[in-house]
Amino acid sequence: MVFLGSGNVATHLSVALHRAGLKILQIYSPNIEHAKKLSAQTGSGAVDVIVDINPDADLYLICISDDQISTVAKKLPSLSGIVAHTSGIVGMEVLERFESFGVSYPLQTFSKNRLVDLAPVPFCIEGNDENTKKMLFNLAGSLSQSVHYINSADRKQIHLAAVFINNFPNHLYAVADKFLREKNLSFDLLLPLLQETAAKMNQLNPDEAQTGPARRNDMNTIKIHSEMLKNNPEFLEIYQLFSHQILSKYHD
Amino acid sequence: MVFLGSGNVATHLSVALHRAGLKILQIYSPNIEHAKKLSAQTGSGAVDVIVDINPDADLYLICISDDQISTVAKKLPSLSGIVAHTSGIVGMEVLERFESFGVSYPLQTFSKNRLVDLAPVPFCIEGNDENTKKMLFNLAGSLSQSVHYINSADRKQIHLAAVFINNFPNHLYAVADKFLREKNLSFDLLLPLLQETAAKMNQLNPDEAQTGPARRNDMNTIKIHSEMLKNNPEFLEIYQLFSHQILSKYHD
Repeated sequence: MVFLGSGNVATHLSVALHRAGLKILQIYSPNIEHAKKLSAQTGSGAVDVIVDINPDADLYLICISDDQISTVAKKLPSLSGIVAHTSGIVGMEVLERFESFGVSYPLQTFSKNRLVDLAPVPFCIEGNDENTKKMLFNLAGSLSQSVHYINSADRKQIHLAAVFINNFPNHLYAVADKFLREKNLSFDLLLPLLQETAAKMNQLNPDEAQTGPARRNDMNTIKIHSEMLKNNPEFLEIYQLFSHQILSKYHD
Repeated sequence: MVFLGSGNVATHLSVALHRAGLKILQIYSPNIEHAKKLSAQTGSGAVDVIVDINPDADLYLICISDDQISTVAKKLPSLSGIVAHTSGIVGMEVLERFESFGVSYPLQTFSKNRLVDLAPVPFCIEGNDENTKKMLFNLAGSLSQSVHYINSADRKQIHLAAVFINNFPNHLYAVADKFLREKNLSFDLLLPLLQETAAKMNQLNPDEAQTGPARRNDMNTIKIHSEMLKNNPEFLEIYQLFSHQILSKYHD
């Protein structure tokens, strides 16, 4: 197989597949230094121009920015191997000029300098025919215990929900961090609460787990908090929107 | 010691202190059934009227709703033991009519039917004199490895930040859960991502960990997501506010 891309997704997947014993022929990146760096970790060749991509691989995995997938796919030659991308939001059909094409979307957040255990990570698999689907399913199955056939429409919904589960809570963490730093207090104090808030979801549903001033209709605390945020209009806007939505939900 | 209250905080703390070998004389609750239920777990007496509270205890821990603390404190007789509450937002001074008074605020979310390991939970301690502070510090130290002297003003700031770390992420989880249920998709698929989003905070700061369409200025994805939410005005309002704030922060 050949990897197109050298970012976080390409790095985590190619290194994990290499460790699982799969042969990765090449890493392609328009930046040869990036390609070389990753190829050194995966025992692969490094290429920076499309014409140098090996045409005889069984699989080409496109792990690049969502908005570049279509452009790069158009530049590829005809290929008899499977061409697949790893995006949550891009439809499978952008690859339809190939004979065999599909999607393998890992539902996880990948950062530089942080190893992720792929075993529990859901992979959303799609393919234009049975063989392609099976091949992508089995490949994901060599990394993860949670592989699912999910079509492009459902994958887009899951991708949007993931923004509410990952990007937006992270922004709330950033807000709390900034707020505390302004008061010379440490964000670390909040880490056990932060972890428990997430851990609860393995046992309770979010409605059962909801607590706080808005949940118990404690208007006095909401008033005090709003006053405390009067010099932080961005934080206040979040506070008021969330308090309003939680109050409406539980207290009409 | 005597506990006033029988809710989640009273339950988790009294059971943990009982297990740590401390003698809990009484549980007070205006609802005698609640008092009896908890006293059965802690080897204590159960009382439902204030005059029956033992006047000779070394400590009275008030674990009740924030807006009731002042009222209950006023009804108590003069006491020579320490009187303390466990609220994040109520000032220590509401207890100043007592000789020795203070605060022991456990920075954690407690739910029915879910055991919490108290060892990593920060306790914020305050007291009106050195002996009171030390006594409350040592008591918290019998449960937790993270005990801190923190004054009422700082405790209020931490309590507000905790709303951004616990109540509001939980509301985002509820939004994602509802959104996926409407599409007949399972929230469980998102749990590994949800856990990793929190786990990252043990290693990265929130600014390093921020990812997503707004972080990378991907206006096309933001447009598609907004379109997908057009029939969910509440979700769309959150989506737009957060995307706007993250875009402003990273892309001006």
